[in-house]
Formats: sequence, C-alpha cells, structure tokens
Amino acid sequence: MNTKFHPYYAVIFTSKHSNTLEGYTEMAIQMEQLAKEQPGFLGMDSARNDIGITVSYWESLDSITQWKQHSDHLVAQRKSRNHWYSWYNVKICKVEREYEF
Amino acid sequence: MNTKFHPYYAVIFTSKHSNTLEGYTEMAIQMEQLAKEQPGFLGMDSARNDIGITVSYWESLDSITQWKQHSDHLVAQRKSRNHWYSWYNVKICKVEREYEF
Repeated sequence: MNTKFHPYYAVIFTSKHSNTLEGYTEMAIQMEQLAKEQPGFLGMDSARNDIGITVSYWESLDSITQWKQHSDHLVAQRKSRNHWYSWYNVKICKVEREYEF
Repeated sequence: MNTKFHPYYAVIFTSKHSNTLEGYTEMAIQMEQLAKEQPGFLGMDSARNDIGITVSYWESLDSITQWKQHSDHLVAQRKSRNHWYSWYNVKICKVEREYEF
C-alpha cells in the first residue's frame, strides 16, 4: 500500500459535439494551455470517439472552483453551450485510491 | 443546488495499447457486458485516441471491489497486463458534485 498517497481531485468532463465546430479546436487548445498554467493543476487526459471524455486533475476543490471562474474559461463555457456541444456533463470527484501497471 | 444528490463512485481507467491486440475486442465487449450485470453498476463511458479512457460508475466501494475480484474479470486483467496494454492506471474516486448542460 502506498502510504504516501495524498487525495486529490478529478474533473470528469463528458460531452457530445453539436454540428457546429467552427472555432472549437482553437478554443480547446487555448483552454488546455490555460488550464495547465492554473494553480493546483496536476494533469489532463483526453479521448474522443462518439463521446469525448476529458479528465483533469487538481490539488484541491478550491483550484477547481478558481479555474471554473477564470474569465477566459467563462467565455469558453458560454460559447461551448451556445455552439460546440449538444450535451455535456461535469463530475467533481475526490481520487481516493490509485494503482498502475 | 441539487439536494437529492447522493455520492457515488467512479473508476477512471486510463490505458495505452500494446502492439498485440489479438482477442482484445472480444474481451472488451465481454467485460463491458459482464460489468453491466454486476450489483451496484451505474454506467460506463469510453473513448480512445492515443490513450483510452473508460470511466465506470458504481454505487459503492464494495461493488467496485467485488467487480475487481470477479473471476472472469481477474482473467481479463491478467491477459490485459500480459498482452493488450503497455500501460494502465486505475483511479478510484468519489463523485462529490455533478452538473449537466
């Protein structure tokens, strides 16, 4: 057992694209870059087929709240709802255990 | 605020395929079907590009442990390590908040 394990947080973002993707890729690249610069950011994984799954990892709930409220991110969230996604779901999770192969 | 929200659990499975994928698709379909039949199973999302991300959702930590120890699943885990994945990571998380668009 890894006694050094410190709980951290995951944001699971699951989404379906709409038919309007103009400007989406630029936004996605910009937001990924910006997220990486935020305090408390730990990492990010993404994959997309029928649905997209992006999981980002954070040191604390505070760092997640701050990123959610970042002004550029608020603009991206609004555009996302208006243009690029027909549906999305966000889950805020506490990572309690982890193992790797 | 959704006062009806009950915490539940997410297993984030992140993986990289090896070059040996013979038998993989059959196993993946079989395991997804079997997971859906387990007590406490709530849902599952998957996507794969460079990496694969599969997130499954469960009512309790107990239901996750039981699924991890299911005999057919143990066989699949062993084959996965020996054949189909060069790397994988499993995170057990408590879903604390959720919102949807």
